[in-house]
Amino acid sequence: MDGKDRFSAEKIDAVYEAIFKRRDIRSFENTDIPDELIQRLLKAAHHAPSVGYMQPWNFIVIRDAKVKAEAKESFLREHNAASEYFEGEKKEKYKSFKLEGIEEAPVNICVTCDPSRFGPHVIGRHSMPETDVYSVCCAVQNIWLAARAEGVGVGWVSILRKASLKDILGMPDHIIPVAYLCVGIPAKFYDKPELELAGWSNRLSLDKLTFSNKWGNAWGLEPVSTADDR
Amino acid sequence: MDGKDRFSAEKIDAVYEAIFKRRDIRSFENTDIPDELIQRLLKAAHHAPSVGYMQPWNFIVIRDAKVKAEAKESFLREHNAASEYFEGEKKEKYKSFKLEGIEEAPVNICVTCDPSRFGPHVIGRHSMPETDVYSVCCAVQNIWLAARAEGVGVGWVSILRKASLKDILGMPDHIIPVAYLCVGIPAKFYDKPELELAGWSNRLSLDKLTFSNKWGNAWGLEPVSTADDR
Repeated sequence: MDGKDRFSAEKIDAVYEAIFKRRDIRSFENTDIPDELIQRLLKAAHHAPSVGYMQPWNFIVIRDAKVKAEAKESFLREHNAASEYFEGEKKEKYKSFKLEGIEEAPVNICVTCDPSRFGPHVIGRHSMPETDVYSVCCAVQNIWLAARAEGVGVGWVSILRKASLKDILGMPDHIIPVAYLCVGIPAKFYDKPELELAGWSNRLSLDKLTFSNKWGNAWGLEPVSTADDR
Repeated sequence: MDGKDRFSAEKIDAVYEAIFKRRDIRSFENTDIPDELIQRLLKAAHHAPSVGYMQPWNFIVIRDAKVKAEAKESFLREHNAASEYFEGEKKEKYKSFKLEGIEEAPVNICVTCDPSRFGPHVIGRHSMPETDVYSVCCAVQNIWLAARAEGVGVGWVSILRKASLKDILGMPDHIIPVAYLCVGIPAKFYDKPELELAGWSNRLSLDKLTFSNKWGNAWGLEPVSTADDR
């Protein structure tokens, strides 16, 4: 089978490489990254798919140490609260993980969703109104993959309360902060997800996650190699 | 500035090319696509970031014409209902758009979210429980970009009711159907989004969507070129 307007084998490999080598980064080098690079990442985000071509995203690029400190404070509060849900050894392990690089990273980016953009009637949103936020998540993934190719690390910090983020960043009531990203030169791109390296959990088997035609029907294909599950 | 473990210039370009040339595809050639290709796309999805390494996704690969016909029926019902919200010329235009290729595409893939995976306490989900679904959206974007590189088209059909999809595909109550994708060889990859070509709306200006440190503060950089806004 030949695809239409298919990329060269080398280019196809490059796309898969970005996908397989992307990591959630929590430790950054003390190096700045230029605005032009940030702009390239945001342009990648802006070319994400969006329901009804709604482009519901905004980007707040944060370099101000005071704003970062406020975000960090919100993280610490949420992180302490979350640690109460783990017990014994699991709790110690949880507390030992480095889960964010808010203040280390030269740049933080908050990616938001404006559900009101282009008015109430957007093609494709009547049956699933939440597709506005779905579009924003696709934009975040574009940032992540473009950054990986550029050798730039991105960490998504979700241990934050949305209400606090809205307050810290001065968002209007109707805006939803979807992702809070730390962006900079990573200390390292690990071969595998850090939670896997730490023995917290493993990559699931893809063939067990895949069904044929209906939920629960095994697809029955040979499992794909996990050799490059990086 | 040098990135860490940065890709070659050619590989970086390939990643951006996939991002810029990706399209939502609604018209497909009458050509099958092999399961091995589907598996590569699913493997790309399975390497998406997920909150607390939760990997909350499942994939239902649909080739059965009867299942597709049921999905198409749900689409038609939702599409007719949605058309009531548009008026006059806009309504005629809306009704003229081809918004899905459910039955034409050799393969449909429903990507779902299991909020219960790994129990109630997943790292990073206490403050933002909806990050499970966000992870699934990142997985969908990986499918989309890998497919584009392979010359394969993907169309996300959101004009479907989640309750109908769950019923048609036999999902347990707690499973959320996030994306219903049509996958096949596209009739064409258009240079721009179809809704832009049809004069429905335009790509917004990225510099107006970007703020500095707080909501509403202009970032003040020169707008990036839109020459390759494909």
